[in-house]
Amino acid sequence: MTEKLEQVLPENIEKRSFEIISQELGERSFDPLEEPVIKRCIHTSADFDYADTLVFSPGAVRRALEAVRSGALIVTDTNMGKAGVNKKVLASFGGEAVCFMADPDVAKAAKEEGTTRAVASMKKAAALAEETDRPLILAVGNAPTALVEICALLDQGKIDPALVIGVPVGFVNVVAAKEMLLEKDVPSIVARGRKGGSNIAAAICNAILYMARDGVE
Amino acid sequence: MTEKLEQVLPENIEKRSFEIISQELGERSFDPLEEPVIKRCIHTSADFDYADTLVFSPGAVRRALEAVRSGALIVTDTNMGKAGVNKKVLASFGGEAVCFMADPDVAKAAKEEGTTRAVASMKKAAALAEETDRPLILAVGNAPTALVEICALLDQGKIDPALVIGVPVGFVNVVAAKEMLLEKDVPSIVARGRKGGSNIAAAICNAILYMARDGVE
Repeated sequence: MTEKLEQVLPENIEKRSFEIISQELGERSFDPLEEPVIKRCIHTSADFDYADTLVFSPGAVRRALEAVRSGALIVTDTNMGKAGVNKKVLASFGGEAVCFMADPDVAKAAKEEGTTRAVASMKKAAALAEETDRPLILAVGNAPTALVEICALLDQGKIDPALVIGVPVGFVNVVAAKEMLLEKDVPSIVARGRKGGSNIAAAICNAILYMARDGVE
Repeated sequence: MTEKLEQVLPENIEKRSFEIISQELGERSFDPLEEPVIKRCIHTSADFDYADTLVFSPGAVRRALEAVRSGALIVTDTNMGKAGVNKKVLASFGGEAVCFMADPDVAKAAKEEGTTRAVASMKKAAALAEETDRPLILAVGNAPTALVEICALLDQGKIDPALVIGVPVGFVNVVAAKEMLLEKDVPSIVARGRKGGSNIAAAICNAILYMARDGVE
């Protein structure tokens, strides 16, 4: 089988992957700021569905680039999502990624309120955001309940995020929660339908981080 | 939109998700030990392709259950994969999950040998495995080069893993590396084709961990 392996230098594997993705997308054209996000989601999943399902609110990527360059606080709804974010690039702009899902106070609040830890962790993010001037990016790749809570916090005027990444994956309330977010007046990137995941949430963050690093305006 | 949300208690969301997955899989029948693994991959990705692409070597799940119950060492090829593994259940059997990708000695070795950090980290895993009696589970969700290196280590008789999870995702050498692993005489679970990912690698680990916890024989 070894002869079937393509000889590609380690540092060129990603470049070659993106060439293949571009080739298979063929004549399709995308907004130049949205294209790197779409392609990185395909890169991370080998799933071309994302070329059809990703929905960007107007100017969402531009606003997210500004946020990253101002030292954004990225709040994820899983430690897996946080692990996937390129913290080195994020830190180069003074930014930080956090996840509250494993915090004891979040577990306690969720139990007391009969809700999910994802909801409690979004409430904690909102409280934290009030205390800081950092732009807030909420990256939800797992829990639709987190998105529903974000919608409630938006309605109550308790958060003003620079971007909400709404890409939870699954079968219960995932589609409805994403559609709910799409009705809100907030910068958002949403993967319509059931698909998404912590890997997709991280890929979207990283696409924006790499654009910021590479000087994309 | 709120009225479209299904009322499901937080603790029942996963159960309800698996009911929907079973329903949509319809009349398809699977090996009883492989079915929970297949369903958890679908659960984590909302992608039913895994019902067709996952390939199990004979007895792979049974061998993996024994390994977990004997305190397996799970080596992942991304920190994201490690983050996704349920360490609480793993630790309840005396097991541990590690990832060497961010280790300085791995970065150094990769640079010196002109290879990827994934290759260097699999070599480190092999060296570590020689020093321990713990069964070894290699969980590759990202780097096809890691799988190619595992094949070389198998050929050299340098590793004897209880399970190799071969689910890297991508466009360069991913398909070929998986087919190479499938030719080896080693317990394996492979997602044929381009798809996979750190989330899928973690989902396979967790499916086996939960079966071990729930007393499945």
